[in-house]
Amino acid sequence: MTFILPQKIVCGSFLRTKGNIMLKIAKFGGTSLATAEQMKKVRDIINADMSRRIIVPSAPGKAHKDDVKITDLLLMIHEKVKMNQSFDNEWDRIVSRFQTMIKDLNLDIDLSSELKTTKDKILSGAGEDYIVSRGEAINGRILAALLGAEFVEAGDVIIINSSGKVHPSSYEKVLSRCSDSGKRYVIPGFYGKNEEGEIRTLSRGGSDVTGAVAANALSADLYENWTDVSGFMMTDPRIIPEAATIQQITYQELRDLAYMGAGVLHDEAIFPVQEKGIPINIRNTNRPLDDGTLILPSRDSSTQKICGISGVKGFTAFTIKKAMRNADLSLSRKIVELFESHDILAEHILSGIDTVTVVVKENGLELKKDKIIEGLKALEVDEVKVDDKMSLVAMVGNGMKFLPNLMTDLFSSLAAEGVTLRMIDFGSSDQNIIIGVDEADHNKAIKGIYKSIPSK
Amino acid sequence: MTFILPQKIVCGSFLRTKGNIMLKIAKFGGTSLATAEQMKKVRDIINADMSRRIIVPSAPGKAHKDDVKITDLLLMIHEKVKMNQSFDNEWDRIVSRFQTMIKDLNLDIDLSSELKTTKDKILSGAGEDYIVSRGEAINGRILAALLGAEFVEAGDVIIINSSGKVHPSSYEKVLSRCSDSGKRYVIPGFYGKNEEGEIRTLSRGGSDVTGAVAANALSADLYENWTDVSGFMMTDPRIIPEAATIQQITYQELRDLAYMGAGVLHDEAIFPVQEKGIPINIRNTNRPLDDGTLILPSRDSSTQKICGISGVKGFTAFTIKKAMRNADLSLSRKIVELFESHDILAEHILSGIDTVTVVVKENGLELKKDKIIEGLKALEVDEVKVDDKMSLVAMVGNGMKFLPNLMTDLFSSLAAEGVTLRMIDFGSSDQNIIIGVDEADHNKAIKGIYKSIPSK
Repeated sequence: MTFILPQKIVCGSFLRTKGNIMLKIAKFGGTSLATAEQMKKVRDIINADMSRRIIVPSAPGKAHKDDVKITDLLLMIHEKVKMNQSFDNEWDRIVSRFQTMIKDLNLDIDLSSELKTTKDKILSGAGEDYIVSRGEAINGRILAALLGAEFVEAGDVIIINSSGKVHPSSYEKVLSRCSDSGKRYVIPGFYGKNEEGEIRTLSRGGSDVTGAVAANALSADLYENWTDVSGFMMTDPRIIPEAATIQQITYQELRDLAYMGAGVLHDEAIFPVQEKGIPINIRNTNRPLDDGTLILPSRDSSTQKICGISGVKGFTAFTIKKAMRNADLSLSRKIVELFESHDILAEHILSGIDTVTVVVKENGLELKKDKIIEGLKALEVDEVKVDDKMSLVAMVGNGMKFLPNLMTDLFSSLAAEGVTLRMIDFGSSDQNIIIGVDEADHNKAIKGIYKSIPSK
Repeated sequence: MTFILPQKIVCGSFLRTKGNIMLKIAKFGGTSLATAEQMKKVRDIINADMSRRIIVPSAPGKAHKDDVKITDLLLMIHEKVKMNQSFDNEWDRIVSRFQTMIKDLNLDIDLSSELKTTKDKILSGAGEDYIVSRGEAINGRILAALLGAEFVEAGDVIIINSSGKVHPSSYEKVLSRCSDSGKRYVIPGFYGKNEEGEIRTLSRGGSDVTGAVAANALSADLYENWTDVSGFMMTDPRIIPEAATIQQITYQELRDLAYMGAGVLHDEAIFPVQEKGIPINIRNTNRPLDDGTLILPSRDSSTQKICGISGVKGFTAFTIKKAMRNADLSLSRKIVELFESHDILAEHILSGIDTVTVVVKENGLELKKDKIIEGLKALEVDEVKVDDKMSLVAMVGNGMKFLPNLMTDLFSSLAAEGVTLRMIDFGSSDQNIIIGVDEADHNKAIKGIYKSIPSK
């Protein structure tokens, strides 16, 4: 697989450029900003590339293994405020961490009055969203000082609607606020304001979304997402510790892996950049020379068709047997309708010659199961069979139909692991093949699939 | 595979017996009865086993390669009658064939007056069903004479309802008419009477149905179906000339093969015997020592999981792509509903992570295709893709989930044949796996699957 290191190219084939000047958004996660030492790494990374124009920091993560993340301390404060308890311990801990950082970084700023104002606001009844967003807000001030960059109050540019999503008006606000191409800006992640001007947070991990919105707003060439791993692994490293890093993956492939259980960026952090075809680069602050994972609108899959494997447990299969079921034009519809009427999504529908199987998530099913079985029996079928504890595992990639040995390698590898196949659903998309196995075979299935991939 | 020759056992494990006396129904096809020479083989077969109590003959088939089947001659007569043309040529040919047979068999019967009456009835406007059923009716007389058996007028015992199916009252009529356990009976196949007493035929090949009804009526131990092949082949011999004969197969497996395109017994010839768990034995009149194929309620599949392969061309796949389709609880139902509203059966429904595919028969689709695409687009999907000219090929058997190397062998064999897989649908039943391939790959797919079966 050929990998093109984004910062080394000016007019790369997959990176769009504004004339010859590239524009990058760099978001840094909590572990990248947890200590002065980490902050210095971040500073060096940013200073190495002038095209990193907007920096989006998270709140500081754990400074050491037994530490508590700033955001978790803020959540504790919120809990104590609710119960009218003193939160001095937690607050002092937060203040101490920030002050230590400022001192260790030899920064010539004093956040005492800002911290005092914040505490006063909390004491006078500020809401949860205000409280938990202070980690990013204060950290943003420190990072801006460290970089000599302009701090942008997220509340001024990120507008969050009543359902907690970014309002499209944010794009225009970010663009006009960060319009000076000679300047570098720091926008704290995770929060903004609602249309009434109150601080609102995005869902946890929302700094990824802030970065994506900034990338869209400025039509960036690249959205860098700096974290503590050198990109996404091809599969869960708890199952395959030696899993290879994904070098290139498309938005769609990433979403497929995420849907099937992989913990990657959430959809709202992808759609704003996907909309403009902006690549995302997952990078490691602690190993800045690693290429990381590049998420692209499309990729050359000629040498690497498969990009990842993920799996989810907790599915139940309802199988209906009916002789001559194909003579009954309305049977499939009635079956699907029955599940819909119980508010259960038919994740997969399989069919044999005289059978139909509907695979659904077990979550939320228990209380509805008997009613569903009853409903299926009422369709005058010969037999209803329920098989639970199924795990669905997906192999995600591109052009699977045209990889002649893929199925052979896949199924021989699964057989070698001793996996009993409960289902195979392939053909709707040639970008994924979904197999069903016993939950007990979940890890073995992922191992089997992983081993079957020729080049990794 | 162990095969138990039915006529050699008295209390076989799978053959039920009346005390120690077995009871068999033997149906003979047209080629088995086409000439005096063939008739003698039939006589020898029947006389070799006293338990063959009811014999069901078809009309004589072709006596030689360029000959015409009696039933086809009768159809020509019907056509000529409709157009007020003389049918003497065809009639004389029929009379000559029957008279030659009687003479060659040295039978002491004279059917002249019966033949005369028949011709008169045709001339005076007898219906199509009367005309085309005369092959069986007259042949039954000859066979009864040859065997010294009692001729049973099919019209007296087989009652056919207005939709051309056997009325259940037939069972009781056959049972009481053929109650003498010391006698052998000949019931001509293919026809009966309606409730108004008029001659009615079953669909073509209906003699199989007559035999099945007789087997059910007498709760036979075995229903023998004598033909000109030594049982069913595992797959289409035009594709695999060396295809092995199926030794044992269940009713369900047979139906699965038939549904997927294999030309075997039709459903109405199976349900009456399946209902009573009566095995069917497909035998070869020309090779009476061959075991043939035994169709059973269930079989021991421990040594032979796969029993056959069949395939049908002419499918089209409609694929709908919708980002986050799983968030739309009603999408699957709306899609299935759309096809139902166009009177199109969703044969298979496949799903990827953001895609759903509905596979339908092309037959009857052409005029509805554009409307369906329009309807799918109206569901606010991102993309609708139509792929036609797909062939579905099924591997039919038992216990596929527990055959660890089945998938490996199957897909490596398909890859070796150069088959590109368009779909795999497995898991609803562990008795069949259905794959989709380009129609151009149809024969290669069947070859690939056939070669992958370890023991045949």
